[in-house]
Amino acid sequence: MDLDIKKDLASNWFKLLQESICRDINLLENNKVNFRSYSWKRNKKTDEGGGEFRILKNGKIFDKVGVNFSKVYGKFPDQFKKNILGANKDSRFWASGISVVMHMKNPLMPAMHFNTRYICTTKHWFGGGIDLTPSKKDEMEKNYFHQTLKSMCDRHNKDYYKKYKKWCDKYFFLPHRNESRGIGGIFFDYKQDNFEKNFYFVRDVGVTFQMLFNKIIRKKIKKKWSIKDKEIQYLKRGRYTEFNLLYDRGTKFGLQTGGNIDGILMSLPPLAKWK
Amino acid sequence: MDLDIKKDLASNWFKLLQESICRDINLLENNKVNFRSYSWKRNKKTDEGGGEFRILKNGKIFDKVGVNFSKVYGKFPDQFKKNILGANKDSRFWASGISVVMHMKNPLMPAMHFNTRYICTTKHWFGGGIDLTPSKKDEMEKNYFHQTLKSMCDRHNKDYYKKYKKWCDKYFFLPHRNESRGIGGIFFDYKQDNFEKNFYFVRDVGVTFQMLFNKIIRKKIKKKWSIKDKEIQYLKRGRYTEFNLLYDRGTKFGLQTGGNIDGILMSLPPLAKWK
Repeated sequence: MDLDIKKDLASNWFKLLQESICRDINLLENNKVNFRSYSWKRNKKTDEGGGEFRILKNGKIFDKVGVNFSKVYGKFPDQFKKNILGANKDSRFWASGISVVMHMKNPLMPAMHFNTRYICTTKHWFGGGIDLTPSKKDEMEKNYFHQTLKSMCDRHNKDYYKKYKKWCDKYFFLPHRNESRGIGGIFFDYKQDNFEKNFYFVRDVGVTFQMLFNKIIRKKIKKKWSIKDKEIQYLKRGRYTEFNLLYDRGTKFGLQTGGNIDGILMSLPPLAKWK
Repeated sequence: MDLDIKKDLASNWFKLLQESICRDINLLENNKVNFRSYSWKRNKKTDEGGGEFRILKNGKIFDKVGVNFSKVYGKFPDQFKKNILGANKDSRFWASGISVVMHMKNPLMPAMHFNTRYICTTKHWFGGGIDLTPSKKDEMEKNYFHQTLKSMCDRHNKDYYKKYKKWCDKYFFLPHRNESRGIGGIFFDYKQDNFEKNFYFVRDVGVTFQMLFNKIIRKKIKKKWSIKDKEIQYLKRGRYTEFNLLYDRGTKFGLQTGGNIDGILMSLPPLAKWK
Protein backbone atom coordinates (compact mmCIF):
# COMPACT_ATOMS: atom_id res chain seq x y z
CA MET A 1 0.00 0.00 0.00
CA ASP A 2 1.20 3.47 -0.85
CA LEU A 3 2.53 5.41 2.16
CA ASP A 4 0.28 8.38 1.41
CA ILE A 5 -2.75 6.15 1.65
CA LYS A 6 -1.55 4.78 4.99
CA LYS A 7 -1.13 8.31 6.28
CA ASP A 8 -4.63 9.25 5.16
CA LEU A 9 -6.15 6.12 6.65
CA ALA A 10 -4.44 6.71 9.98
CA SER A 11 -5.18 10.42 10.29
CA ASN A 12 -8.78 10.00 9.09
CA TRP A 13 -9.31 7.38 11.76
CA PHE A 14 -7.84 9.61 14.48
CA LYS A 15 -10.08 12.48 13.38
CA LEU A 16 -13.17 10.28 13.35
CA LEU A 17 -12.33 8.87 16.75
CA GLN A 18 -11.96 12.39 18.12
CA GLU A 19 -15.47 13.14 16.93
CA SER A 20 -16.86 9.93 18.34
CA ILE A 21 -15.20 10.34 21.76
CA CYS A 22 -16.46 13.91 21.99
CA ARG A 23 -20.00 12.71 21.32
CA ASP A 24 -19.71 10.16 24.14
CA ILE A 25 -18.49 12.87 26.46
CA ASN A 26 -21.28 15.23 25.46
CA LEU A 27 -23.75 12.46 26.17
CA LEU A 28 -22.25 11.83 29.61
CA GLU A 29 -22.72 15.55 30.28
CA ASN A 30 -26.31 15.36 28.98
CA ASN A 31 -25.32 17.84 26.25
CA LYS A 32 -25.39 20.61 28.84
CA VAL A 33 -21.75 21.65 28.71
CA ASN A 34 -20.03 22.24 25.40
CA PHE A 35 -16.58 21.62 24.11
CA ARG A 36 -14.59 24.62 23.04
CA SER A 37 -12.70 23.81 19.88
CA TYR A 38 -9.40 25.33 18.77
CA SER A 39 -7.87 24.84 15.34
CA TRP A 40 -4.24 25.72 14.89
CA LYS A 41 -1.51 25.62 12.27
CA ARG A 42 2.20 24.97 12.86
CA ASN A 43 3.22 27.63 10.43
CA LYS A 44 1.19 30.54 9.14
CA LYS A 45 3.17 30.96 5.93
CA THR A 46 3.92 27.45 4.69
CA ASP A 47 1.81 24.33 5.12
CA GLU A 48 3.27 22.26 7.94
CA GLY A 49 0.00 20.88 9.24
CA GLY A 50 -1.71 21.59 12.51
CA GLY A 51 -4.60 20.24 14.47
CA GLU A 52 -7.75 20.72 16.41
CA PHE A 53 -8.01 20.32 20.13
CA ARG A 54 -11.24 20.36 22.06
CA ILE A 55 -11.60 21.12 25.72
CA LEU A 56 -14.60 20.81 27.98
CA LYS A 57 -14.40 22.27 31.48
CA ASN A 58 -16.49 22.43 34.64
CA GLY A 59 -18.95 19.73 33.69
CA LYS A 60 -21.03 17.57 35.99
CA ILE A 61 -18.72 14.64 35.23
CA PHE A 62 -15.52 16.22 33.99
CA ASP A 63 -13.52 18.93 35.71
CA LYS A 64 -11.56 19.08 32.48
CA VAL A 65 -11.27 16.85 29.47
CA GLY A 66 -9.18 17.46 26.39
CA VAL A 67 -9.51 15.59 23.09
CA ASN A 68 -6.64 16.45 20.84
CA PHE A 69 -6.17 15.66 17.17
CA SER A 70 -3.12 16.67 15.19
CA LYS A 71 -1.53 16.07 11.82
CA VAL A 72 1.85 17.73 11.48
CA TYR A 73 4.79 17.48 9.10
CA GLY A 74 8.03 19.20 8.24
CA LYS A 75 11.52 18.83 9.61
CA PHE A 76 12.72 18.05 13.12
CA PRO A 77 15.10 20.57 14.69
CA ASP A 78 18.70 19.33 14.63
CA GLN A 79 19.05 18.76 18.35
CA PHE A 80 15.84 16.71 18.40
CA LYS A 81 16.14 14.47 15.35
CA LYS A 82 18.77 12.18 16.86
CA ASN A 83 16.22 11.07 19.46
CA ILE A 84 13.69 10.00 16.83
CA LEU A 85 13.71 6.63 15.11
CA GLY A 86 14.80 6.95 11.48
CA ALA A 87 15.28 10.74 11.58
CA ASN A 88 19.00 11.06 12.25
CA LYS A 89 20.06 11.29 8.61
CA ASP A 90 16.84 12.64 7.13
CA SER A 91 15.04 14.96 9.49
CA ARG A 92 11.73 15.08 7.58
CA PHE A 93 8.71 13.72 9.43
CA TRP A 94 4.97 13.31 9.25
CA ALA A 95 2.94 12.57 12.38
CA SER A 96 -0.71 12.29 13.25
CA GLY A 97 -2.40 11.26 16.45
CA ILE A 98 -5.17 11.60 18.94
CA SER A 99 -4.74 12.06 22.67
CA VAL A 100 -7.32 12.29 25.42
CA VAL A 101 -6.89 13.28 29.06
CA MET A 102 -9.82 13.19 31.46
CA HIS A 103 -9.69 14.89 34.85
CA MET A 104 -12.82 13.89 36.70
CA LYS A 105 -14.96 15.92 39.04
CA ASN A 106 -15.71 12.89 41.20
CA PRO A 107 -12.39 12.04 42.89
CA LEU A 108 -13.45 8.40 43.14
CA MET A 109 -13.21 8.18 39.36
CA PRO A 110 -9.68 7.77 37.99
CA ALA A 111 -8.04 10.28 35.67
CA MET A 112 -7.88 8.59 32.26
CA HIS A 113 -5.39 8.94 29.48
CA PHE A 114 -5.43 7.56 25.96
CA ASN A 115 -3.29 8.20 22.93
CA THR A 116 -2.60 6.64 19.54
CA ARG A 117 -0.37 7.98 16.82
CA TYR A 118 1.22 7.18 13.48
CA ILE A 119 4.66 8.60 12.83
CA CYS A 120 6.63 8.56 9.59
CA THR A 121 10.30 9.37 9.20
CA THR A 122 12.42 7.06 7.06
CA LYS A 123 10.58 4.50 9.23
CA HIS A 124 6.80 4.39 9.83
CA TRP A 125 5.22 3.19 13.03
CA PHE A 126 2.25 3.25 15.36
CA GLY A 127 2.37 3.97 19.05
CA GLY A 128 -0.06 4.63 21.84
CA GLY A 129 -1.56 3.49 25.09
CA ILE A 130 -4.22 3.69 27.75
CA ASP A 131 -3.63 4.20 31.45
CA LEU A 132 -5.49 5.16 34.60
CA THR A 133 -4.52 7.39 37.51
CA PRO A 134 -6.93 6.89 40.42
CA SER A 135 -6.48 8.96 43.55
CA LYS A 136 -8.27 6.33 45.63
CA LYS A 137 -7.67 2.60 45.45
CA ASP A 138 -10.36 0.48 43.79
CA GLU A 139 -9.27 -3.13 43.29
CA MET A 140 -12.41 -4.12 41.40
CA GLU A 141 -12.04 -1.33 38.92
CA LYS A 142 -8.34 -2.04 38.52
CA ASN A 143 -8.99 -5.72 37.80
CA TYR A 144 -11.78 -4.93 35.37
CA PHE A 145 -9.58 -2.41 33.58
CA HIS A 146 -6.58 -4.67 33.20
CA GLN A 147 -8.70 -7.69 32.33
CA THR A 148 -10.40 -5.74 29.56
CA LEU A 149 -7.07 -4.61 28.16
CA LYS A 150 -5.75 -8.16 28.33
CA SER A 151 -8.73 -9.57 26.42
CA MET A 152 -8.36 -6.88 23.80
CA CYS A 153 -4.62 -7.49 23.43
CA ASP A 154 -5.08 -11.26 23.29
CA ARG A 155 -7.34 -10.88 20.28
CA HIS A 156 -4.31 -9.58 18.40
CA ASN A 157 -1.31 -11.32 19.89
CA LYS A 158 -0.94 -13.36 23.06
CA ASP A 159 2.33 -11.60 23.90
CA TYR A 160 1.04 -8.03 23.67
CA TYR A 161 -0.58 -7.56 27.06
CA LYS A 162 2.38 -8.64 29.16
CA LYS A 163 4.82 -6.66 27.05
CA TYR A 164 2.75 -3.49 26.81
CA LYS A 165 1.70 -3.53 30.45
CA LYS A 166 5.37 -3.72 31.47
CA TRP A 167 6.24 -0.89 29.10
CA CYS A 168 3.44 1.20 30.60
CA ASP A 169 4.61 0.59 34.18
CA LYS A 170 8.12 1.58 33.21
CA TYR A 171 7.03 4.69 31.35
CA PHE A 172 4.53 6.18 33.79
CA PHE A 173 6.94 6.24 36.71
CA LEU A 174 8.26 9.19 38.73
CA PRO A 175 11.86 8.25 39.59
CA HIS A 176 12.33 11.27 41.86
CA ARG A 177 9.50 9.99 44.05
CA ASN A 178 10.08 6.33 43.35
CA GLU A 179 6.37 5.93 42.67
CA SER A 180 4.09 5.08 39.76
CA ARG A 181 1.88 7.76 38.26
CA GLY A 182 -1.15 5.52 38.43
CA ILE A 183 -2.15 1.87 38.06
CA GLY A 184 -0.71 1.47 34.58
CA GLY A 185 -2.44 -0.01 31.55
CA ILE A 186 -0.77 -0.54 28.18
CA PHE A 187 1.86 1.44 26.32
CA PHE A 188 3.32 0.50 22.92
CA ASP A 189 5.57 2.13 20.36
CA TYR A 190 7.57 1.48 17.18
CA LYS A 191 4.96 -0.93 15.76
CA GLN A 192 6.24 -1.03 12.20
CA ASP A 193 6.13 -4.64 11.06
CA ASN A 194 2.73 -4.83 9.38
CA PHE A 195 0.60 -1.75 8.70
CA GLU A 196 -2.76 -3.50 8.33
CA LYS A 197 -2.36 -5.65 11.41
CA ASN A 198 -1.05 -2.79 13.49
CA PHE A 199 -3.69 -0.37 12.28
CA TYR A 200 -6.36 -2.88 13.22
CA PHE A 201 -4.84 -3.12 16.71
CA VAL A 202 -4.65 0.66 17.02
CA ARG A 203 -8.34 1.01 16.11
CA ASP A 204 -9.21 -1.67 18.65
CA VAL A 205 -7.28 0.26 21.32
CA GLY A 206 -9.38 3.32 20.44
CA VAL A 207 -12.78 1.68 20.65
CA THR A 208 -11.75 -0.25 23.75
CA PHE A 209 -10.86 3.04 25.40
CA GLN A 210 -14.31 4.39 24.48
CA MET A 211 -15.98 1.37 26.01
CA LEU A 212 -13.79 1.53 29.11
CA PHE A 213 -14.28 5.17 29.98
CA ASN A 214 -18.03 4.96 29.48
CA LYS A 215 -18.28 1.93 31.79
CA ILE A 216 -15.92 3.25 34.44
CA ILE A 217 -17.70 6.59 34.59
CA ARG A 218 -21.27 5.29 34.49
CA LYS A 219 -20.57 2.84 37.28
CA LYS A 220 -19.65 5.67 39.67
CA ILE A 221 -21.89 8.39 38.39
CA LYS A 222 -23.94 8.56 41.58
CA LYS A 223 -21.16 7.68 43.97
CA LYS A 224 -20.80 10.18 46.84
CA TRP A 225 -17.42 11.67 47.63
CA SER A 226 -16.01 13.88 50.40
CA ILE A 227 -13.94 17.06 50.53
CA LYS A 228 -11.11 14.90 51.83
CA ASP A 229 -11.33 12.68 48.73
CA LYS A 230 -11.14 15.81 46.60
CA GLU A 231 -8.06 17.09 48.46
CA ILE A 232 -6.31 13.78 47.85
CA GLN A 233 -7.20 14.07 44.17
CA TYR A 234 -5.68 17.57 44.02
CA LEU A 235 -2.41 16.26 45.47
CA LYS A 236 -2.44 13.33 43.03
CA ARG A 237 -2.87 15.89 40.25
CA GLY A 238 0.27 17.59 41.53
CA ARG A 239 2.15 14.37 40.83
CA TYR A 240 0.44 14.13 37.45
CA THR A 241 1.71 17.63 36.63
CA GLU A 242 5.22 16.70 37.74
CA PHE A 243 5.23 13.69 35.44
CA ASN A 244 3.92 15.55 32.44
CA LEU A 245 6.34 18.46 32.72
CA LEU A 246 9.42 16.56 33.90
CA TYR A 247 9.25 13.37 31.84
CA ASP A 248 6.46 13.02 29.31
CA ARG A 249 7.77 12.35 25.80
CA GLY A 250 4.61 13.62 24.18
CA THR A 251 5.00 16.97 25.92
CA LYS A 252 8.64 17.18 24.82
CA PHE A 253 7.73 16.13 21.26
CA GLY A 254 5.06 18.80 21.09
CA LEU A 255 7.24 21.57 22.49
CA GLN A 256 10.16 20.65 20.23
CA THR A 257 8.08 20.43 17.05
CA GLY A 258 6.33 23.75 17.49
CA GLY A 259 2.98 22.30 18.43
CA ASN A 260 0.23 24.42 19.90
CA ILE A 261 1.08 25.13 23.55
CA ASP A 262 -2.45 24.98 24.88
CA GLY A 263 -3.00 21.77 22.97
CA ILE A 264 0.18 20.21 24.32
CA LEU A 265 -0.46 21.27 27.90
CA MET A 266 -4.12 20.35 27.67
CA SER A 267 -3.13 17.26 29.68
CA LEU A 268 -2.42 19.37 32.76
CA PRO A 269 -5.14 19.28 35.39
CA PRO A 270 -7.34 22.34 35.92
CA LEU A 271 -6.14 22.58 39.51
CA ALA A 272 -3.23 20.88 41.26
CA LYS A 273 -1.91 21.09 44.80
CA TRP A 274 1.37 20.47 46.54
CA LYS A 275 1.79 19.84 50.26
CA MET B 1 42.60 31.13 52.58
CA ASP B 2 42.16 27.41 52.96
CA LEU B 3 39.27 25.98 50.91
CA ASP B 4 37.78 24.25 53.96
CA ILE B 5 37.54 27.59 55.72
CA LYS B 6 35.79 29.11 52.70
CA LYS B 7 33.30 26.26 52.69
CA ASP B 8 32.61 26.73 56.39
CA LEU B 9 32.23 30.48 56.05
CA ALA B 10 29.81 30.11 53.16
CA SER B 11 27.64 27.36 54.64
CA ASN B 12 27.59 29.00 58.08
CA TRP B 13 26.37 32.19 56.47
CA PHE B 14 23.63 30.39 54.52
CA LYS B 15 22.48 28.65 57.72
CA LEU B 16 22.43 31.91 59.66
CA LEU B 17 20.54 33.65 56.89
CA GLN B 18 17.95 30.86 56.88
CA GLU B 19 17.40 31.46 60.59
CA SER B 20 17.17 35.20 60.14
CA ILE B 21 14.74 35.05 57.20
CA CYS B 22 12.52 32.63 59.11
CA ARG B 23 12.40 35.06 62.03
CA ASP B 24 11.31 37.87 59.70
CA ILE B 25 8.59 35.66 58.30
CA ASN B 26 7.42 34.63 61.75
CA LEU B 27 7.21 38.27 62.68
CA LEU B 28 5.17 39.07 59.57
CA GLU B 29 2.79 36.33 60.64
CA ASN B 30 2.71 37.74 64.20
CA ASN B 31 4.18 34.43 65.39
CA LYS B 32 0.78 32.81 64.94
CA VAL B 33 1.69 30.25 62.29
CA ASN B 34 4.75 28.09 62.66
CA PHE B 35 7.29 26.71 60.27
CA ARG B 36 7.51 22.97 59.98
CA SER B 37 11.14 21.95 59.77
CA TYR B 38 12.53 18.88 58.00
CA SER B 39 16.10 17.68 58.30
CA TRP B 40 17.34 15.18 55.77
CA LYS B 41 20.50 13.33 54.78
CA ARG B 42 21.59 12.38 51.25
CA ASN B 43 22.78 9.00 52.33
CA LYS B 44 21.82 7.08 55.44
CA LYS B 45 24.96 4.97 55.51
CA THR B 46 27.81 7.27 54.55
CA ASP B 47 28.14 10.99 55.21
CA GLU B 48 27.22 12.87 52.06
CA GLY B 49 25.64 15.87 53.73
CA GLY B 50 22.01 16.93 53.71
CA GLY B 51 20.03 19.90 54.76
CA GLU B 52 17.12 21.40 56.55
CA PHE B 53 14.12 22.89 54.81
CA ARG B 54 11.40 24.84 56.53
CA ILE B 55 7.91 25.34 55.23
CA LEU B 56 5.14 27.58 56.50
CA LYS B 57 1.66 27.21 55.02
CA ASN B 58 -1.74 28.86 55.23
CA GLY B 59 -0.59 32.00 56.98
CA LYS B 60 -2.25 35.41 56.97
CA ILE B 61 0.50 36.67 54.63
CA PHE B 62 1.90 33.54 53.04
CA ASP B 63 -0.03 30.81 51.28
CA LYS B 64 3.25 28.92 51.31
CA VAL B 65 6.83 29.87 51.94
CA GLY B 66 9.83 27.56 51.90
CA VAL B 67 13.26 28.41 53.29
CA ASN B 68 15.72 25.77 52.27
CA PHE B 69 19.29 25.23 53.49
CA SER B 70 21.52 22.47 52.22
CA LYS B 71 25.12 21.35 52.40
CA VAL B 72 25.85 18.32 50.25
CA TYR B 73 28.94 16.58 48.93
CA GLY B 74 30.01 13.43 47.15
CA LYS B 75 30.26 12.57 43.46
CA PHE B 76 28.12 13.66 40.54
CA PRO B 77 26.54 10.88 38.49
CA ASP B 78 28.38 10.32 35.20
CA GLN B 79 25.69 11.68 32.91
CA PHE B 80 25.43 14.87 34.99
CA LYS B 81 29.06 15.81 35.65
CA LYS B 82 29.76 17.00 32.11
CA ASN B 83 27.21 19.79 32.62
CA ILE B 84 28.97 21.11 35.70
CA LEU B 85 31.91 23.49 35.61
CA GLY B 86 35.15 21.75 36.60
CA ALA B 87 33.54 18.33 37.20
CA ASN B 88 34.13 16.59 33.90
CA LYS B 89 37.41 14.91 34.87
CA ASP B 90 36.92 14.79 38.63
CA SER B 91 33.28 14.27 39.59
CA ARG B 92 33.66 15.12 43.29
CA PHE B 93 31.70 18.11 44.51
CA TRP B 94 30.72 20.09 47.56
CA ALA B 95 27.77 22.49 47.49
CA SER B 96 25.91 24.59 49.99
CA GLY B 97 23.16 27.10 49.52
CA ILE B 98 19.97 28.73 50.67
CA SER B 99 16.85 29.17 48.60
CA VAL B 100 13.59 30.88 49.43
CA VAL B 101 10.30 30.84 47.55
CA MET B 102 7.33 32.87 48.77
CA HIS B 103 3.82 32.30 47.45
CA MET B 104 1.66 35.08 48.83
CA LYS B 105 -1.93 34.92 50.00
CA ASN B 106 -2.61 38.44 48.73
CA PRO B 107 -2.50 38.15 44.91
CA LEU B 108 -1.44 41.79 44.67
CA MET B 109 1.87 40.83 46.28
CA PRO B 110 4.40 39.22 43.94
CA ALA B 111 5.77 35.72 44.40
CA MET B 112 9.39 36.17 45.49
CA HIS B 113 12.39 33.98 44.91
CA PHE B 114 15.90 34.21 46.31
CA ASN B 115 18.86 31.88 46.21
CA THR B 116 22.58 31.98 46.90
CA ARG B 117 25.01 29.09 46.74
CA TYR B 118 28.67 28.16 46.89
CA ILE B 119 29.78 25.23 44.75
CA CYS B 120 33.14 23.49 44.72
CA THR B 121 34.38 21.06 42.11
CA THR B 122 37.92 21.49 40.79
CA LYS B 123 36.63 25.10 40.54
CA HIS B 124 34.87 27.05 43.31
CA TRP B 125 32.21 29.64 42.72
CA PHE B 126 29.23 31.56 44.04
CA GLY B 127 25.91 31.90 42.29
CA GLY B 128 22.47 33.17 43.11
CA GLY B 129 19.80 35.73 42.44
CA ILE B 130 16.58 37.47 43.37
CA ASP B 131 13.49 37.78 41.20
CA LEU B 132 9.81 38.65 41.44
CA THR B 133 6.75 37.12 39.81
CA PRO B 134 3.75 39.40 40.22
CA SER B 135 0.40 38.32 38.87
CA LYS B 136 -0.76 41.91 38.60
CA LYS B 137 1.26 44.79 37.18
CA ASP B 138 2.63 47.33 39.64
CA GLU B 139 5.04 49.77 38.00
CA MET B 140 5.96 51.51 41.24
CA GLU B 141 6.89 48.28 42.94
CA LYS B 142 8.82 47.14 39.87
CA ASN B 143 10.83 50.35 39.78
CA TYR B 144 11.51 50.27 43.49
CA PHE B 145 12.63 46.64 43.25
CA HIS B 146 14.99 47.15 40.34
CA GLN B 147 16.33 50.42 41.70
CA THR B 148 17.17 48.75 45.00
CA LEU B 149 18.96 45.92 43.24
CA LYS B 150 20.86 48.40 41.10
CA SER B 151 22.04 50.39 44.12
CA MET B 152 23.13 47.23 45.85
CA CYS B 153 24.99 45.96 42.77
CA ASP B 154 26.63 49.35 42.18
CA ARG B 155 28.17 49.21 45.66
CA HIS B 156 30.20 46.23 44.42
CA ASN B 157 30.76 46.80 40.74
CA LYS B 158 29.20 49.24 38.32
CA ASP B 159 28.84 46.49 35.68
CA TYR B 160 27.00 43.97 37.84
CA TYR B 161 23.43 45.22 37.63
CA LYS B 162 23.21 45.40 33.86
CA LYS B 163 24.91 42.07 33.44
CA TYR B 164 22.96 40.20 36.12
CA LYS B 165 19.62 41.71 35.16
CA LYS B 166 20.13 40.51 31.60
CA TRP B 167 21.12 37.06 32.81
CA CYS B 168 17.99 36.96 34.95
CA ASP B 169 15.70 37.93 32.07
CA LYS B 170 17.28 35.26 29.92
CA TYR B 171 17.05 32.57 32.58
CA PHE B 172 13.49 33.09 33.84
CA PHE B 173 11.90 32.77 30.44
CA LEU B 174 9.37 30.22 29.15
CA PRO B 175 10.32 29.65 25.49
CA HIS B 176 7.25 27.49 24.81
CA ARG B 177 5.03 30.44 25.71
CA ASN B 178 7.45 33.12 24.58
CA GLU B 179 6.92 34.92 27.87
CA SER B 180 8.91 35.86 30.95
CA ARG B 181 8.18 34.14 34.27
CA GLY B 182 8.00 37.46 36.05
CA ILE B 183 9.60 40.91 36.07
CA GLY B 184 13.15 39.65 36.50
CA GLY B 185 15.70 40.85 39.00
CA ILE B 186 19.29 39.64 39.14
CA PHE B 187 20.87 36.26 38.44
CA PHE B 188 24.59 35.49 38.66
CA ASP B 189 26.77 32.40 38.51
CA TYR B 190 30.36 31.19 38.26
CA LYS B 191 31.71 34.01 40.44
CA GLN B 192 35.14 32.55 41.11
CA ASP B 193 37.66 35.36 40.79
CA ASN B 194 37.96 36.58 44.38
CA PHE B 195 36.41 34.71 47.31
CA GLU B 196 36.33 37.60 49.77
CA LYS B 197 34.89 40.10 47.34
CA ASN B 198 32.35 37.65 46.02
CA PHE B 199 31.35 36.43 49.46
CA TYR B 200 30.76 40.03 50.50
CA PHE B 201 28.52 40.51 47.45
CA VAL B 202 26.62 37.29 48.19
CA ARG B 203 25.95 38.40 51.77
CA ASP B 204 24.76 41.75 50.50
CA VAL B 205 22.36 39.98 48.12
CA GLY B 206 20.99 38.06 51.12
CA VAL B 207 20.38 41.05 53.39
CA THR B 208 19.03 43.08 50.47
CA PHE B 209 16.50 40.34 49.84
CA GLN B 210 15.47 40.48 53.50
CA MET B 211 15.00 44.20 53.30
CA LEU B 212 13.11 43.93 50.01
CA PHE B 213 10.58 41.29 50.98
CA ASN B 214 9.82 43.03 54.26
CA LYS B 215 9.18 46.34 52.50
CA ILE B 216 7.20 44.89 49.60
CA ILE B 217 4.98 42.88 51.90
CA ARG B 218 4.42 45.55 54.55
CA LYS B 219 3.45 48.09 51.92
CA LYS B 220 0.52 45.94 50.75
CA ILE B 221 -0.41 44.25 53.97
CA LYS B 222 -3.82 45.93 54.13
CA LYS B 223 -4.45 46.08 50.41
CA LYS B 224 -7.81 44.59 49.38
CA TRP B 225 -7.97 42.02 46.62
CA SER B 226 -10.74 40.28 44.70
CA ILE B 227 -11.56 36.68 43.79
CA LYS B 228 -10.70 37.60 40.22
CA ASP B 229 -7.21 38.74 41.33
CA LYS B 230 -6.80 35.39 43.08
CA GLU B 231 -7.84 33.44 39.97
CA ILE B 232 -5.25 35.33 37.92
CA GLN B 233 -2.65 34.45 40.57
CA TYR B 234 -3.57 30.74 40.33
CA LEU B 235 -3.04 30.81 36.56
CA LYS B 236 0.27 32.64 36.99
CA ARG B 237 1.26 29.89 39.40
CA GLY B 238 0.53 27.39 36.65
CA ARG B 239 3.20 29.11 34.57
CA TYR B 240 5.50 29.15 37.59
CA THR B 241 5.06 25.38 37.89
CA GLU B 242 5.76 24.91 34.19
CA PHE B 243 9.01 26.84 34.49
CA ASN B 244 10.21 25.01 37.56
CA LEU B 245 9.50 21.54 36.23
CA LEU B 246 10.45 22.11 32.59
CA TYR B 247 13.51 24.34 32.87
CA ASP B 248 14.81 25.19 36.33
CA ARG B 249 18.47 24.21 36.79
CA GLY B 250 18.14 24.09 40.56
CA THR B 251 15.35 21.54 40.28
CA LYS B 252 17.41 19.43 37.88
CA PHE B 253 20.51 19.76 40.09
CA GLY B 254 18.54 18.62 43.11
CA LEU B 255 16.89 15.67 41.38
CA GLN B 256 20.18 14.54 39.85
CA THR B 257 22.19 14.76 43.06
CA GLY B 258 19.73 12.85 45.21
CA GLY B 259 18.45 15.85 47.11
CA ASN B 260 15.34 15.67 49.23
CA ILE B 261 12.30 15.69 46.94
CA ASP B 262 10.05 17.75 49.15
CA GLY B 263 12.87 20.21 49.66
CA ILE B 264 13.55 20.48 45.92
CA LEU B 265 9.89 20.84 44.98
CA MET B 266 9.23 23.21 47.87
CA SER B 267 9.29 25.93 45.21
CA LEU B 268 6.04 24.66 43.69
CA PRO B 269 2.97 26.67 44.62
CA PRO B 270 0.40 25.19 47.02
CA LEU B 271 -2.25 25.46 44.31
CA ALA B 272 -1.93 26.06 40.57
CA LYS B 273 -4.48 26.27 37.81
CA TRP B 274 -4.51 25.83 34.07
CA LYS B 275 -7.15 27.20 31.72
